[in-house]
Amino acid sequence: MTWLLIAFDGKETALNKRAITKLVNTHPPKTALDQAFYTDVDIYTRDIEEIYLKSWLYAGHVSEIPAIGDWFLFELAGESVIIVRSDTHEINALVNVCRHRGSRICLTARGCARKLICGYHGWTYELDGRLRNAAHMQKTFDKSGIALKKIHVEVLEGMIYVNFGARPASFEVIRNGLTECLRSYRLDTAKVAHRQTYSIDANWKLAVENYSECYHCAPAHPEYTRGHSLAKPGAHSEALMEEVMQRASACGLSDKSVSRIYLDAEGFGADYAYERYPMWQGHITGSEDGQAVAPLLGDVSDYDGGTTDIQIGPVNFALAYCDHVVIYRFTPVSLDRSECDITWLVNGSAEEGKDYDKERLAWLWDVTTTADKRIIESNAKGIKSRYYKPGPLAHMEDYTWKFISWYLRAIKP
Amino acid sequence: MTWLLIAFDGKETALNKRAITKLVNTHPPKTALDQAFYTDVDIYTRDIEEIYLKSWLYAGHVSEIPAIGDWFLFELAGESVIIVRSDTHEINALVNVCRHRGSRICLTARGCARKLICGYHGWTYELDGRLRNAAHMQKTFDKSGIALKKIHVEVLEGMIYVNFGARPASFEVIRNGLTECLRSYRLDTAKVAHRQTYSIDANWKLAVENYSECYHCAPAHPEYTRGHSLAKPGAHSEALMEEVMQRASACGLSDKSVSRIYLDAEGFGADYAYERYPMWQGHITGSEDGQAVAPLLGDVSDYDGGTTDIQIGPVNFALAYCDHVVIYRFTPVSLDRSECDITWLVNGSAEEGKDYDKERLAWLWDVTTTADKRIIESNAKGIKSRYYKPGPLAHMEDYTWKFISWYLRAIKP
Amino acid sequence: MTWLLIAFDGKETALNKRAITKLVNTHPPKTALDQAFYTDVDIYTRDIEEIYLKSWLYAGHVSEIPAIGDWFLFELAGESVIIVRSDTHEINALVNVCRHRGSRICLTARGCARKLICGYHGWTYELDGRLRNAAHMQKTFDKSGIALKKIHVEVLEGMIYVNFGARPASFEVIRNGLTECLRSYRLDTAKVAHRQTYSIDANWKLAVENYSECYHCAPAHPEYTRGHSLAKPGAHSEALMEEVMQRASACGLSDKSVSRIYLDAEGFGADYAYERYPMWQGHITGSEDGQAVAPLLGDVSDYDGGTTDIQIGPVNFALAYCDHVVIYRFTPVSLDRSECDITWLVNGSAEEGKDYDKERLAWLWDVTTTADKRIIESNAKGIKSRYYKPGPLAHMEDYTWKFISWYLRAIKP
Repeated sequence: MTWLLIAFDGKETALNKRAITKLVNTHPPKTALDQAFYTDVDIYTRDIEEIYLKSWLYAGHVSEIPAIGDWFLFELAGESVIIVRSDTHEINALVNVCRHRGSRICLTARGCARKLICGYHGWTYELDGRLRNAAHMQKTFDKSGIALKKIHVEVLEGMIYVNFGARPASFEVIRNGLTECLRSYRLDTAKVAHRQTYSIDANWKLAVENYSECYHCAPAHPEYTRGHSLAKPGAHSEALMEEVMQRASACGLSDKSVSRIYLDAEGFGADYAYERYPMWQGHITGSEDGQAVAPLLGDVSDYDGGTTDIQIGPVNFALAYCDHVVIYRFTPVSLDRSECDITWLVNGSAEEGKDYDKERLAWLWDVTTTADKRIIESNAKGIKSRYYKPGPLAHMEDYTWKFISWYLRAIKP
Repeated sequence: MTWLLIAFDGKETALNKRAITKLVNTHPPKTALDQAFYTDVDIYTRDIEEIYLKSWLYAGHVSEIPAIGDWFLFELAGESVIIVRSDTHEINALVNVCRHRGSRICLTARGCARKLICGYHGWTYELDGRLRNAAHMQKTFDKSGIALKKIHVEVLEGMIYVNFGARPASFEVIRNGLTECLRSYRLDTAKVAHRQTYSIDANWKLAVENYSECYHCAPAHPEYTRGHSLAKPGAHSEALMEEVMQRASACGLSDKSVSRIYLDAEGFGADYAYERYPMWQGHITGSEDGQAVAPLLGDVSDYDGGTTDIQIGPVNFALAYCDHVVIYRFTPVSLDRSECDITWLVNGSAEEGKDYDKERLAWLWDVTTTADKRIIESNAKGIKSRYYKPGPLAHMEDYTWKFISWYLRAIKP
Repeated sequence: MTWLLIAFDGKETALNKRAITKLVNTHPPKTALDQAFYTDVDIYTRDIEEIYLKSWLYAGHVSEIPAIGDWFLFELAGESVIIVRSDTHEINALVNVCRHRGSRICLTARGCARKLICGYHGWTYELDGRLRNAAHMQKTFDKSGIALKKIHVEVLEGMIYVNFGARPASFEVIRNGLTECLRSYRLDTAKVAHRQTYSIDANWKLAVENYSECYHCAPAHPEYTRGHSLAKPGAHSEALMEEVMQRASACGLSDKSVSRIYLDAEGFGADYAYERYPMWQGHITGSEDGQAVAPLLGDVSDYDGGTTDIQIGPVNFALAYCDHVVIYRFTPVSLDRSECDITWLVNGSAEEGKDYDKERLAWLWDVTTTADKRIIESNAKGIKSRYYKPGPLAHMEDYTWKFISWYLRAIKP
């Protein structure tokens, strides 16, 4: 072998299936994951193949590609997919690999074109992927059977989800579970006000585990804790909850909470949740001062003093306020690096600078995610220690445990 | 194991010999290479050992080391070789590794010295590699048998070629095949006007495949396509070709085209080619406006309206115009990175600023190589996709297929 | 496998135990190490596990943490250890990994705190490591048995040493061997005047081998060679040595030379040495002009014209002058990278700017280490060559051979 391995400061393994199975089977309940789940290369391969390449993944919002030929790229695990609006206004997810010699076709993050032309030898594709032209090919060359490969794509209330799997989980389950809850926000007519990607030097599971629990909110997120009752366990009374839910109905919002996630989902990858909880008095949305940061969304008629945690599939999360929605997506980049991509949606007719200020809108979840990045990276360093021993999870980490339990089953060989 | 593998966004393999043999044996004709040839670490090792360490490689030009003691370094695959002009004006290729504790001896890209002195413990070598002095060694130490190791070196018309192999292909075959064609350019008296290295984030074969075909010229290289008839298949008439060749003879240039490359070579690594084709009217050399950029080379008496593609060994290429020669060398740096090194030669008596302008001289092949770098890197990203499937090669990619056919045989275990 | 290995420009191996044993057993005497010892990943793993995780390592000086709660981090091989002064003024070495979910607790290089609080979920520890508080845990949670893990720590004349091993070599052997020799310097009351880390792109053994011999001093270190007689073999007379030693006694310094290192040590890792040699006339300390750079240390009453090489454990070295002490520590960072950490100690009552100038104080060993970094990195490049062959060691490299002999036995499977 003529290769240099970059040294890693802790230990790393490449476990075989039997060893992974044993690790999964012997995992103690309500306990953090063993080191190997963060440092084993074969487990990481399973993470990609058994979870990410089989799950619905948030790709973007329809408002990002309003016109025919508009496209943006969705990238994951070395794959690049062109999300493009076709001549018939459908949304296609085309693999960004030329059928000739494999070049990338679209090279920038987004663009608009009536045909997709490979810059290498000029092979030209229709917006639905069919090969339209290839110059100077032999007479025997039959272009009719050649097209860019496609992956599955679904749109839920304007949010575009893709799935690399051959037979993905039914998206109808998710659609049926959430459409009614989400409808009044009218996200299909919303628009992207801001989008930001945070690079995190940590295995993706440390990021999802962090997102899944609010045990760390009080010590680590004073900005969030000020307005959101979730940060203090048992802090809000049933009475306050009831009060907010009554106002929700009056404001046109669903007062239902639904949660069919992880092992409770109706099939692998068909996770969905819409869970409401009160904000503290004086707070009507997620912002620095608790006051409105954008016009009310869709059919929402007033601020009800509540907020909502949303989950769509295993690794896409969102927070819905009355005036904006924050969409989270966590993706692995390598064993030791992941990305957190955040999209802020506002009312489609709102104008930046007039109806909302981007800085103010994004403030809370930018400051919170920046803090989480630091926390997750400190966690990543610690779990590589030869002295790391997974500790007990608190009640406030129940969702993290739900995730871990599901994860262990999902990657079990 | 205590190592961190840097995650790669596609799949990578380390195939055994049987698997590599099977891949080679089942490769379909006139088709791009399978993904594994770009992403497999054991295949990359074979690329280095079976091809690069056994091939003649362009190292530089005699004008770079005119005086006794002048040297420059040639580096490849972790090896560093001192190309030095000896006390008897011969050119030696000495391995840049001290025989004491292995330190590099020459640390800069080029220099001049009467003795080669290791900066660590002062061991001192003659310009032919013999150890001259080692201070404070035991009395029993016999320095007479100790010398820097040498690799093979040959000079063809002033161009220096080295070969790491124990029994390299006969350079005489190449010399016999090309001397007559090249002689009138008098490259032995030419000089290096410019030299530039382009780092390409791609496996080296993607770079060579790109160089080998002009199917991409029309879509990707308008600057080249303007003047060079090769960019349009069947575009130039036999009559035009004949006309140019007649002028060639009158200008003192060879009108012969020879090509014994890859599987047609007279033995592994003994590739040579000198192939002429017309430029379009109004173009007399490879430049932005088609007009002269330097004085005529050597014994060339006028511009004949033609140009020449040259190949010397499997991975060294050149383009000869009447007023300058452009030498290309492609070298692997890692599985995923390569270098393209370009040297521009002009008439040895030409003066920069007076007889030629470096920017104007280098313009065409700089702009073309910069575009190719982008193209090759886009290709490299695409071929790593799980969805990549090698496509059919066009007639205009026949030379790429010649390269691939030879390559497959060369690395077959 | 879905991993990218970064290509390495030479060859690399992952040898099994039998192959490593054979390499060790067949190593020729008084010869540099074989290439594999610098490029084999499994040998590097043994280096870490059999040597670094079992050796006493210099962590810092007591003057860096004078008050209760003062701490600094010691980091090696992915481990981070909090060196902290406890409520009872003891020095503890606590593993910087929270017992809950494994986060790092201390995130900066140094600090001061009455309690150690994990920033993730607020778990709070005493300065001796005991868990004091964990919010919102289940009633059944018993915190009494939970504490940060500890590693061994010892203090010798104010210098703090740590050891990751379960049963480390007796530090008493080292203490007994050196206390008398070191006492007059009163390093327990000294202070850190300067500390600097040099990153070296080379396997750690190339750095230690370089430090171990003065064969390279004359060719490579004119600044050192000016004042230190060690640079010229047999240069100083017995008479000069005797003279200096007599002055040493008069100045309150030990005139003893002791050396129980490597295979001569009283057990693995219990190395110690205190070896004196004369400086050339006109030089009274290690500085640019040979003149004093700080007030005399501790109980030293005058400059005796000598200097001292010290070793404590296998990889910690020091140089003692009458007015300052320079402490060296070499640590591996990866197979191909290491760090050289240097601490300059001066009299505890000396004031910077008044009694000493930091630039002047650090000049000699900064200029020497900067040169060594370059030398070692050139060595690292050369030994990766396919043409590298370990050469014979000179008499002046006897200490390097002592190190190599010990090293081979230490990592032998």
